[in-house]
Amino acid sequence: MIGGGQLARMSAAPAAALGIDFAVLATSEGESAAQVVRRVVLGDHDDPQALARLAANSDIVTFDHEHVPPPMLEQLLDRGVLVRPGPDALRHAQDKWHMRQTLSQMGAPVPAWARVDHPGEVSAFAEDNGWPLVLKISRGGYDGRGVWVVENETQVETLMRQTPLVDAAVWLVEEYLPFEMEISAQVARSPHGQAVAYPVVRTVQVEGMCAEVVAPAPGLDPDLALEATDLALRIAQELDVVGMLAVELFVVSGRIVVNELAMRPHNSGHWSIEGAVTSQFENHLRAVLDWPLGDPRTIAPHTVMVNVIGPDHPIPPLHEAFRHVMARDPGLHVHLYGKSVRPRRKLGHVTVVGDDLDDVLDRAHHGADYLMGVIDE
Amino acid sequence: MIGGGQLARMSAAPAAALGIDFAVLATSEGESAAQVVRRVVLGDHDDPQALARLAANSDIVTFDHEHVPPPMLEQLLDRGVLVRPGPDALRHAQDKWHMRQTLSQMGAPVPAWARVDHPGEVSAFAEDNGWPLVLKISRGGYDGRGVWVVENETQVETLMRQTPLVDAAVWLVEEYLPFEMEISAQVARSPHGQAVAYPVVRTVQVEGMCAEVVAPAPGLDPDLALEATDLALRIAQELDVVGMLAVELFVVSGRIVVNELAMRPHNSGHWSIEGAVTSQFENHLRAVLDWPLGDPRTIAPHTVMVNVIGPDHPIPPLHEAFRHVMARDPGLHVHLYGKSVRPRRKLGHVTVVGDDLDDVLDRAHHGADYLMGVIDE
Repeated sequence: MIGGGQLARMSAAPAAALGIDFAVLATSEGESAAQVVRRVVLGDHDDPQALARLAANSDIVTFDHEHVPPPMLEQLLDRGVLVRPGPDALRHAQDKWHMRQTLSQMGAPVPAWARVDHPGEVSAFAEDNGWPLVLKISRGGYDGRGVWVVENETQVETLMRQTPLVDAAVWLVEEYLPFEMEISAQVARSPHGQAVAYPVVRTVQVEGMCAEVVAPAPGLDPDLALEATDLALRIAQELDVVGMLAVELFVVSGRIVVNELAMRPHNSGHWSIEGAVTSQFENHLRAVLDWPLGDPRTIAPHTVMVNVIGPDHPIPPLHEAFRHVMARDPGLHVHLYGKSVRPRRKLGHVTVVGDDLDDVLDRAHHGADYLMGVIDE
Repeated sequence: MIGGGQLARMSAAPAAALGIDFAVLATSEGESAAQVVRRVVLGDHDDPQALARLAANSDIVTFDHEHVPPPMLEQLLDRGVLVRPGPDALRHAQDKWHMRQTLSQMGAPVPAWARVDHPGEVSAFAEDNGWPLVLKISRGGYDGRGVWVVENETQVETLMRQTPLVDAAVWLVEEYLPFEMEISAQVARSPHGQAVAYPVVRTVQVEGMCAEVVAPAPGLDPDLALEATDLALRIAQELDVVGMLAVELFVVSGRIVVNELAMRPHNSGHWSIEGAVTSQFENHLRAVLDWPLGDPRTIAPHTVMVNVIGPDHPIPPLHEAFRHVMARDPGLHVHLYGKSVRPRRKLGHVTVVGDDLDDVLDRAHHGADYLMGVIDE
């Protein structure tokens, strides 16, 4: 697996259970997955020699993130390594311009959008779609980085002047959608075409970062849930995705609109470790190995996952909070990623599974809030 | 954790989730846990230097097996390392003579038993208890090794002559109990005295090895289940156990009788990975770290675990069977231990969780039987 973050770290458990010889390419010994996986190859994801070292001992390569340049993936293919998902599929998760073009061609529901090179083009787009608008860089953003809500041309000018475009990124502008809900539809798909769909979940983003996930999405119109699932399965097939695909969508005025794609295990699926029969991490591995996929269904009426995100204020070591949160709630599932505390950094998450949604929400938020030092009782 | 077997391997997942800096002492790079854990100390469990190397980087030491000689554990304590469970508790799992003495003193239900040095003493014991009898070596046995059912003094003479006693082991003789059921009561206990009890499970042993576990034990009189749980909690407290304790019991003529003790995660608790809110592996770690314990309750009416044991006949690599068992049953949970196939070796296990016991039993046995090459469809 290329990348040593928390997604690789959480993939280690099913890899061990399934007897998979699992290695990660990590940038340092201290990176999240490198702390817990036996076979670590040190190096950068955009260093051809590091990729070659990983590939030399791997039959199949997959990803913890989407940042490997496509030409380097082609080189891995040339070496006879199976790259899953392949570069052609992955490009849609690497480049929002490419994604928007393909989804538009498919007839998938997307916001009004345009590629722009100059602030004047954004203003022209605003004449049809009004302000505010969403300005994005097509490549390299994550967790809210590389996405801005803009109110006027002056803001656009400043942003476009101050933000360098690298790696063939382009500017995109999209209509601003005052959504009622954000949802995520996750599917796993194998090279031989089998696919399974997880229940559609509700996600809450704070400052562009995933904060809370509820599975299944409470209050979501069942027809829209089915539509989102169908769409995710169709995207997986048409883009030839192998592994997990997350389709992040807005619910706006009773319809769904695609926001983002991710082709790997995704924050909106962490709930599945405890809340589904087969977790997204196991199904990602089974898919990339072309093994039959596991049951994605829930084991209980409600599962809530809340991220533990580094606060702006200093907090004690997270383990010091365990005594309180574990004693208060023996059913709380705590996951830490082995990272030092920094503001706005995903440090871990908690999950609660149960029958009563309000209770499950309260418990998950209490656990996360206590770990983040937001509450102290 | 001292020992690099499958119990250490399965402990790695909750160790990573809880952000525990987890190391194993393994005899080789290829040992089960050494394949998947980042920090491996190579060496033997009875090599003081190897133990010192592990201890040099550990605050707390615990166990994958009971084979470390007590004086070496005392040396670790002298170095300031916390050893959990401690040598005084662990001795009861290391030496059946010690265990029988203590349980008898506690008034716990045990079979009639005696320490014997000569075949004639076994025959004298038979005068009160009849043949067959159970002859045991007090130390070093596992998975049916070191335990024999004997029918007459000639067999006893042969066994006692052919079997060397090492490590201060002694011979024990016990009455043979024609049990109706074997059960296991597992509890986790912390240094500060908190304890939680898993539901009592039914175990089926084949040739002295655990073959099947059903949680909770079907058909077990609820009063006996409560009695077994109370007894396990009492043993944990009186012996000052820290971590998981498994009390293996016979149900005979409507009463329970203690057969064995284990002070570590135990084969009778593997079902808890998917079938309980908090697994035995996580609760063992939480207990030895003196963190509050997790909820041991089941998440569904029935969980069945079946061991995958190396057959006497050659079989293809286990992964080749995945395509069939996973396609046939997407809800099957497969765990492999990374071991080469040898007869009578525990290679892995499968678990199924569900509402209908017969269905869950059928599915788990089908998965295990197919993996073991017992069936081919």
